[in-house]
Amino acid sequence: MNSKRVAQETANLLQDYLTYQAVRTILDQLAETDPNQALWLRKFSRQYNLRDSEAYLQALMAQRKDLVMRIMKVREALAAEVVDSLPEMVRSGIEQSNLSYRCQILERLTQTQPENTDNSHPDESDSSE
Amino acid sequence: MNSKRVAQETANLLQDYLTYQAVRTILDQLAETDPNQALWLRKFSRQYNLRDSEAYLQALMAQRKDLVMRIMKVREALAAEVVDSLPEMVRSGIEQSNLSYRCQILERLTQTQPENTDNSHPDESDSSE
Repeated sequence: MNSKRVAQETANLLQDYLTYQAVRTILDQLAETDPNQALWLRKFSRQYNLRDSEAYLQALMAQRKDLVMRIMKVREALAAEVVDSLPEMVRSGIEQSNLSYRCQILERLTQTQPENTDNSHPDESDSSE
Repeated sequence: MNSKRVAQETANLLQDYLTYQAVRTILDQLAETDPNQALWLRKFSRQYNLRDSEAYLQALMAQRKDLVMRIMKVREALAAEVVDSLPEMVRSGIEQSNLSYRCQILERLTQTQPENTDNSHPDESDSSE
């Protein structure tokens, strides 16, 4: 496993995602304080894909530097509040999910074992379960 | 800002993403050791969207429990290797990106200031930059 590559790709994804969450937060704020601006930003965000946050911000830069500033501030604040709790949340989320699949597998094995004694590779041709 | 909601949504996204990276890792391994299985898993992964890792694993469970086990192990290992480095990487990525936008904004302001003295809200009608 190339964990260095995975770490970098995951960090990039997170940066894009926190930028998206920042835009979402600002859209909620604007909807209350300045509906016209909210409408404008919503339209812009449909036009430019937020999955590539750098391209989105570059495009916004040409039209509304004030909104770029606001997004930068909000994503920095979100990162400060959120990222430190992520390692524990993700580790325990994966552990919990894995545990539930292991239980399901054990349940199915114990249910089928009496009928199926030759289960060196029970799943290869099994698509009916 | 509802940072608790953002933290939970981000953790869910990360869990899905590490599952995707686990499948990608296994596809690379299978391509070398067992091309037929690689082909099968690639086909399956096109059919079931990995963006929802739980639905993907549930569907795979019905056909190949051994691959579900393998994905669980790999995503757990990836999480163990990767997640602790993410907070620092994301914080510094965002800081660096913000710094570069701030520089761009400053550059543009200092370039345009002599011609444009009334800049209480210079961006409102500015879409030509």
